[in-house]
Amino acid sequence: MAVFRTTQALFSVLLALFVSPLPCHNVPAYQKPVMVQQTGKVLPKPQMMTASAEAYTLAMSSFKFTYGSSSQMCDIVDQAFRRYYDLIFVVDGVKKAPVVSKDMSELTELQIMVKEPCKGVYPSLESSENYTLTVAAPIGTLVADSAWGVLRGLETFSQLVYRTDDGMMIINKTTVEDFPRFAHRGILLDTSRHFIPIKYIKQNLDAMAYNKFNVFHWHIVDDPSFPYQSVVFPDLSAKGAFNPYTHLYTQEDVKDVIEYSRLRGIRVVPEFDTPGHTASWGAGLPGFLTPCYDGTTPNGKYYAANPMLNTTYDYMTKLLQEVRDVFPDKYVHLGGDEVNFNCWKSNPDITKFMEKMGFGTDYSKLEEYYIKNILDITTSVGRDYIVWQEVLDNGVQVAKDTVVEVWKRKPPVPTEMARVTAKGLRAILSSCWYLNRISYGVDWGQYYTCEPLNFTGTQAQKDLVIGGEACMWGEYVDGTNLIARLWPRASAVAERLWSNKDVTSMADATVRIDEQRCRMVRRGLNAEPLHPGFCQFEYD
Amino acid sequence: MAVFRTTQALFSVLLALFVSPLPCHNVPAYQKPVMVQQTGKVLPKPQMMTASAEAYTLAMSSFKFTYGSSSQMCDIVDQAFRRYYDLIFVVDGVKKAPVVSKDMSELTELQIMVKEPCKGVYPSLESSENYTLTVAAPIGTLVADSAWGVLRGLETFSQLVYRTDDGMMIINKTTVEDFPRFAHRGILLDTSRHFIPIKYIKQNLDAMAYNKFNVFHWHIVDDPSFPYQSVVFPDLSAKGAFNPYTHLYTQEDVKDVIEYSRLRGIRVVPEFDTPGHTASWGAGLPGFLTPCYDGTTPNGKYYAANPMLNTTYDYMTKLLQEVRDVFPDKYVHLGGDEVNFNCWKSNPDITKFMEKMGFGTDYSKLEEYYIKNILDITTSVGRDYIVWQEVLDNGVQVAKDTVVEVWKRKPPVPTEMARVTAKGLRAILSSCWYLNRISYGVDWGQYYTCEPLNFTGTQAQKDLVIGGEACMWGEYVDGTNLIARLWPRASAVAERLWSNKDVTSMADATVRIDEQRCRMVRRGLNAEPLHPGFCQFEYD
Repeated sequence: MAVFRTTQALFSVLLALFVSPLPCHNVPAYQKPVMVQQTGKVLPKPQMMTASAEAYTLAMSSFKFTYGSSSQMCDIVDQAFRRYYDLIFVVDGVKKAPVVSKDMSELTELQIMVKEPCKGVYPSLESSENYTLTVAAPIGTLVADSAWGVLRGLETFSQLVYRTDDGMMIINKTTVEDFPRFAHRGILLDTSRHFIPIKYIKQNLDAMAYNKFNVFHWHIVDDPSFPYQSVVFPDLSAKGAFNPYTHLYTQEDVKDVIEYSRLRGIRVVPEFDTPGHTASWGAGLPGFLTPCYDGTTPNGKYYAANPMLNTTYDYMTKLLQEVRDVFPDKYVHLGGDEVNFNCWKSNPDITKFMEKMGFGTDYSKLEEYYIKNILDITTSVGRDYIVWQEVLDNGVQVAKDTVVEVWKRKPPVPTEMARVTAKGLRAILSSCWYLNRISYGVDWGQYYTCEPLNFTGTQAQKDLVIGGEACMWGEYVDGTNLIARLWPRASAVAERLWSNKDVTSMADATVRIDEQRCRMVRRGLNAEPLHPGFCQFEYD
Repeated sequence: MAVFRTTQALFSVLLALFVSPLPCHNVPAYQKPVMVQQTGKVLPKPQMMTASAEAYTLAMSSFKFTYGSSSQMCDIVDQAFRRYYDLIFVVDGVKKAPVVSKDMSELTELQIMVKEPCKGVYPSLESSENYTLTVAAPIGTLVADSAWGVLRGLETFSQLVYRTDDGMMIINKTTVEDFPRFAHRGILLDTSRHFIPIKYIKQNLDAMAYNKFNVFHWHIVDDPSFPYQSVVFPDLSAKGAFNPYTHLYTQEDVKDVIEYSRLRGIRVVPEFDTPGHTASWGAGLPGFLTPCYDGTTPNGKYYAANPMLNTTYDYMTKLLQEVRDVFPDKYVHLGGDEVNFNCWKSNPDITKFMEKMGFGTDYSKLEEYYIKNILDITTSVGRDYIVWQEVLDNGVQVAKDTVVEVWKRKPPVPTEMARVTAKGLRAILSSCWYLNRISYGVDWGQYYTCEPLNFTGTQAQKDLVIGGEACMWGEYVDGTNLIARLWPRASAVAERLWSNKDVTSMADATVRIDEQRCRMVRRGLNAEPLHPGFCQFEYD
């Protein structure tokens, strides 16, 4: 028997009583409250999805995930079975057996087929996330090349399940063929301006998985603090962390985050930004920073890595070797943004070095010299790299496999995207997704309408755009407000990066993002509201 | 032995390495991180405070609060003893015995003297909150007229205690003579646009107590929903709440909130806003709203209380009698803001009524007629009232004891404050404290520098300004983000309303608000950060 049940008659009556929008006391125009309908809408919207009115009931006692007979098996999928079983039946933060309809067919099983070996693998830029999901009673199927595809498919499956007002868990007969539009879909967290406890990093990884993000860009150190516990240079955190015991990511913490991410198909790309943004490195790595001068005397201040010393490159070699050993991802983010030349200019030894190297007074050549060395070191230790756009803007010759992250708004984003890709380099975009920059009211539309391929260029250039990142810089963010501030606003970015380019209707997206927000709340995350209204289950 | 210990040598070294501010990756200028020094600074700053370098150690095993021999005793103070004992020794959310110095004198006791009977009392606009605190080993004293003064004094005492890096709890020899500058220091929460679970309402009451706020202005119902469970009109919430079971404040919930507030010296002033902002009343109170017309036929929409029907006033009488019985505060907020005349104008019965009453086409006279009736009803049931400024702006004759809440920015705030007080009416200000209107970056300075008495008027007029309110309207706020969004930004308002008018230095306030923010975090509230930096204990 087919049922599609999502009415809330009472509320419709209420809404009918409202008159046209009026200015309301707190200034913005009166907005009708919205009862978020839980109808199994999927965010990000799948590439192809066919849903029927035929619906099935799910029972907590009988429903199970199983491997198909010739499927590969591994911990990634095993643990996802556990997780998604919980997530499907969770209500208000706890698992709750749903009412089971006797008038409907029951979906008793979802059979998973993983084609490629998945034991001990890590996700990569090249990973396949494709999946095919067929929901039909009594046994549905989920087929994917890789465990990563299974993870994405399980997320979709769990979103298709919705709870009716009378407590049933329902899923409609559905077929989904899905794959991401872009391979790199990241969230940047900045753990230097504020320390973010592991608990909230993990909550954010959960939210990322719920929204099919696959890269955790960990801006782990910066000027304000160095919370990464280095094995080769333990003084970096001992002297550079806000507190070397309580505000520290130990090696164990980092491993924990990487494994937690791996199990969710999320790459961890660490950023060790140099030569600028390194103030916190100074105390723990004497000689690394450049002494600044007033006239002929050092003024006691330091700024940026000292590009003229061999020791600088020795330090970076050792650190990047460690980074390679600790972080399994093929890519490391090398920063390279916002280098100010004033301190270098003030230093007489640097002046002599400039002369010796024939750089004249062009300090961008000195910067290029530094960056080139770091890129070469990174290659030599066996890693590929991502850099902020300045590296390219300043004319540094980079390897063909460099990924350039476009973050500025000047030059205009389309100009920069065209420039980067015209050089045959891959690009990721973050300029329009600085979600730390909050404002009053509804702002996710601006994130949703930002189109990475909106620039003039050949198809080959467009193909070089591998994705984008939503950034949550840390000036005003720590464990107290990270999740509420980032979600569900980042869900708008999630859909832009995963779904088809044609998925642009704000009206459609609104109902998906509303349901996704309430879904995250039901799963225990304090994702904030986007307009007046309510969820079936509130955060409590 | 006297010690004043708050060094963090390591961090100073680190800071010294920093060069001048640089633009940082995420656009705002680079800000130095701040290690928030826990030195026992008090927010809001007391009226008179003398601190000495002499410091005492506190031991969890021996320290106690006691009543002085001739003190009044009551539950308010008893429970405050428990609460503040916990708050003083809490670290990272749990009580933790501090290290006790053998080289310092110990403060073993704080003896409390309450002069007035305090059993079963409720705070009121007239309550004395004055207190005198003398911290000197081995026994300090806290003297106050009322239990409310004791609560304020205990908060101050608990803030004077700070934790050193080596785990001691220390308090300096200190004398405080303190009293509030304004008697009405409120926080408005809107529980209609989103439902806020009792848990977060209580967290907010905790935060209010920590910041010496004393009025919870409960904007409990509005257009979007009616979550208040009325005894006389149970259909109001049965048909007007988002959900009549899960999104409801039961009578027990309301009692619980009022008692929780009373024990913290906080008045609960409920707002039942009419004649506008009543869309959610319609379903549960048929005939209460005005039917709107298109030409000569009702268009099925309704807006605002119907001012021509006697039943309207019967309804309001019964509801206000209930409100009087449920809410002990002398004041009820009657709203009266933003009445749009379009629906009234469209209704032919109202047109006839206007003629009959001789109002011509001046609908503000009809509004005045409605409001006047409501004010009279309120008086007749034994309550005083607060109204939004429109009631006065529209020329309604109000009783001399009316309190007018100024919330608009046009006319300019000083003009309106002068106008209200020139009529001999008391005023509270909220125009500059709409904390729901967030923006990127540091915004508390604008709240801090807003001075309620900054208008041209006689001393008698100034004396009529009884305080102000920070408002957190609910369009984008619910349990997921309320606390982080409101605190510590509201602490700036707390100090403006409590401390002396001369307390205006932003630099001084910064260190107090920083410590207050970390203190709230240590006490388990997710108060958000105001700039890069860290607390001794993070929210985790």
